[in-house]
Amino acid sequence: MGLSGQLVDEITAVVGDRWTTSADELARHGQDESWHLPLPPDLVAYPETTEEVASIVAMCHAAALPVVPFGVGTSLEGGIGAEKGGVCLDLTRMDRILRLSIDDLDVTVQAGVTREQLNADINPRGLMFPVDPGANATIGGMAATGASGTTTVRYGAMPHNVLGLTVVMADGRIVRTGGRARKTSAGYDLTRLFVGSEGTLGVITEVTLRLWPIPEAIAAATCAFDSIDSAVDVVIAATQMALPVARMELLDEAAIEAVNAFDDMDLTVAPTLFFEFHGMTAAVDACADEIQALVTDAGGTFAWAVEAEDRSRLWHARHRAYWAMLAMRPGCKGWPTDVCVPISELAQAIRKAQYDLEESNLSAPLVGHVGDGNFHLCYIIDPNDADEFARAEAHYERMIARALAVGGTCTGEHGIGAGKRDFLRREHPEGIDVMLAIKAALDPTTTLNPGKVV
Amino acid sequence: MGLSGQLVDEITAVVGDRWTTSADELARHGQDESWHLPLPPDLVAYPETTEEVASIVAMCHAAALPVVPFGVGTSLEGGIGAEKGGVCLDLTRMDRILRLSIDDLDVTVQAGVTREQLNADINPRGLMFPVDPGANATIGGMAATGASGTTTVRYGAMPHNVLGLTVVMADGRIVRTGGRARKTSAGYDLTRLFVGSEGTLGVITEVTLRLWPIPEAIAAATCAFDSIDSAVDVVIAATQMALPVARMELLDEAAIEAVNAFDDMDLTVAPTLFFEFHGMTAAVDACADEIQALVTDAGGTFAWAVEAEDRSRLWHARHRAYWAMLAMRPGCKGWPTDVCVPISELAQAIRKAQYDLEESNLSAPLVGHVGDGNFHLCYIIDPNDADEFARAEAHYERMIARALAVGGTCTGEHGIGAGKRDFLRREHPEGIDVMLAIKAALDPTTTLNPGKVV
Repeated sequence: MGLSGQLVDEITAVVGDRWTTSADELARHGQDESWHLPLPPDLVAYPETTEEVASIVAMCHAAALPVVPFGVGTSLEGGIGAEKGGVCLDLTRMDRILRLSIDDLDVTVQAGVTREQLNADINPRGLMFPVDPGANATIGGMAATGASGTTTVRYGAMPHNVLGLTVVMADGRIVRTGGRARKTSAGYDLTRLFVGSEGTLGVITEVTLRLWPIPEAIAAATCAFDSIDSAVDVVIAATQMALPVARMELLDEAAIEAVNAFDDMDLTVAPTLFFEFHGMTAAVDACADEIQALVTDAGGTFAWAVEAEDRSRLWHARHRAYWAMLAMRPGCKGWPTDVCVPISELAQAIRKAQYDLEESNLSAPLVGHVGDGNFHLCYIIDPNDADEFARAEAHYERMIARALAVGGTCTGEHGIGAGKRDFLRREHPEGIDVMLAIKAALDPTTTLNPGKVV
Repeated sequence: MGLSGQLVDEITAVVGDRWTTSADELARHGQDESWHLPLPPDLVAYPETTEEVASIVAMCHAAALPVVPFGVGTSLEGGIGAEKGGVCLDLTRMDRILRLSIDDLDVTVQAGVTREQLNADINPRGLMFPVDPGANATIGGMAATGASGTTTVRYGAMPHNVLGLTVVMADGRIVRTGGRARKTSAGYDLTRLFVGSEGTLGVITEVTLRLWPIPEAIAAATCAFDSIDSAVDVVIAATQMALPVARMELLDEAAIEAVNAFDDMDLTVAPTLFFEFHGMTAAVDACADEIQALVTDAGGTFAWAVEAEDRSRLWHARHRAYWAMLAMRPGCKGWPTDVCVPISELAQAIRKAQYDLEESNLSAPLVGHVGDGNFHLCYIIDPNDADEFARAEAHYERMIARALAVGGTCTGEHGIGAGKRDFLRREHPEGIDVMLAIKAALDPTTTLNPGKVV
């Protein structure tokens, strides 16, 4: 069944005029920041409460029409394309912070609250929400994709920072998972089942998050090396010493060049680690001293960025690396890859990928959350050059095959979406049947985000 | 169907003579460390490999006979009772460490490896596995119950430390989840679905764990306070300052008295916090200084235990608190409770529980992993006094009701087992249907550990 006049009337009864079928809005909601072709929904609704979401999902379920949850569309694997049309639930008007406990360091927010909005609210109270995928994504989107990013090496990814969820199931039932306790053994861990399920098992409408105090001291440093291998040696040593670094990011020469040009920086063009240290002043100093010693031993250079504005400039540049890379070949599109391997395999994984780039005549600067063994090459591709796209595709497939062969994963943080379903099968040839059984049990009519993940 | 001669022949074909129906062994395998009545299985098998487990599970599945996985029987909620008879899989002969990577700080072990066995192997290499529920449980059992304990405030619980699993499904299929990457977004998080599912969704046979380096410096301290409230104020302040304490344990007067008597200690009889600090020397010193200042401000006393043997004596005594409590009323049985609340609610939760103990004429010393808001009263009950048991039962029910009312959980770490199924329904009235749907999807014939969790 398609979108009927009756269903539109029913949706209107729930959200009033907070829905649209304008071509522009449909197009915007069918397209994330990836290379995936736009797949617009039939209608976009803007609910403001969990109950409104539940009503719409129940109606769509009854009408056999798909529902696609949408935050701000920063996903990178086509996770929000409406493959079979249906209703897009734009959750950005669910932007209220529902409850904050400073004593407990936790907060409950509606799914449409963005990461920056949350931090703007809590930073003045001495708290922060550190999970930082770069983009100013919604908390609901970050929970749904199990986002991580630059600070995961210290503060964990979304699975470690979500205490509980409110979820609308495929038939419109509202389910609350987890709670406010810091830990629980009460039954199956539904919270972490929904986190990372990319809207295919339920629509996340409210999220209870663990918060962190803003550390007493923060310092950052940039360290340039002769080779990627030397940089990764420092990463391994820092990990083995359990040095409490808060960020540990690798950029290769091409990424540094891009950042220098785009953000008017003057970093040495070399494989470079960006570090950030959080903690008590004495601990930060001790940690930074150890890192400096490791870097010097590895033949690298160590430059402090102690002032807040220097740090902020550094991380601003790091976060804009994707756009900086695109600016190097105007008119081209970016295709950010995402593999994650055991750290001992990282240097070789990067070396082989870079060698293969040369062999394949491809351009793809590298950035990586190397403390987690996670790195991204970003292919810069001429959209009119089908051969270049095909070469990138083949290169990516080889890179993933190598990652899987050493116990790694086809995606460290971007998720499966529409783009990596075949790789998921390859990574979890037995697990995929378990995932399909869970999908069939919780969404037997495939109402929720069809064509994604499984 | 019961245990047939044919099934025994089939099992013999798989494990040879590694099975028994001796009454003693059946009895031992039907009883954990809890107050639950023994429920012996019909047969105990001792498989040595995942493949042997898979074969036996497949045979039992075909014969409609239940399978109950068993580690060393240290569970506290009757998680291993054979409610419907069947085959107990004693996994203690699966005691091999299959792979260790020092560079990656990870290890893969068979499910029957115990926590102490693992640490004995890796400690000399500078690594440790810090999750510490007290008992020398198997890693498989700890994964299956989502164990945590004294170090969770710093290193997280099992869900944070398991990277991947090998699991035998209800029909005997072997599934591998997760992997060796530090993070992954590849599909549904099956690892954390099986962790804490208490053997009801699959039999965990191999576990890949994250390891940690042994810290450069370790120090411990005992701090005595006038009141539980003052102690909890220090816990809240330490949490808000994100002080990197590795352990933060509360014992009330009754628990201190028990420990003093049992382990010949001479601790001041007062509400007491045991602290442990891990990290670089400078960081440990700074952290301990901050704690000392907080303790002094709260009117408490602060005593160092710097020497390794003093520390080890302290934690040994803490770990034996359960037996120490039992020794106070010889012939009595212990019933350890387990609720977890937001930290801001902790002092009141404890105060109300202790007031209610007096009203109910019950004796129950308190220990708590207070950094997580998790505490245990341990009722000391005369097994021949049915009225005392009934009063404890009613007291526990009120304590859980109060915990749920403030956003807490009916179990912070002991799990649901057979004992808390009603409370699980009360805590997750909507979630229970989702859990039941998952159970039905993955174990439609209820082959695995029937009568537990859901």
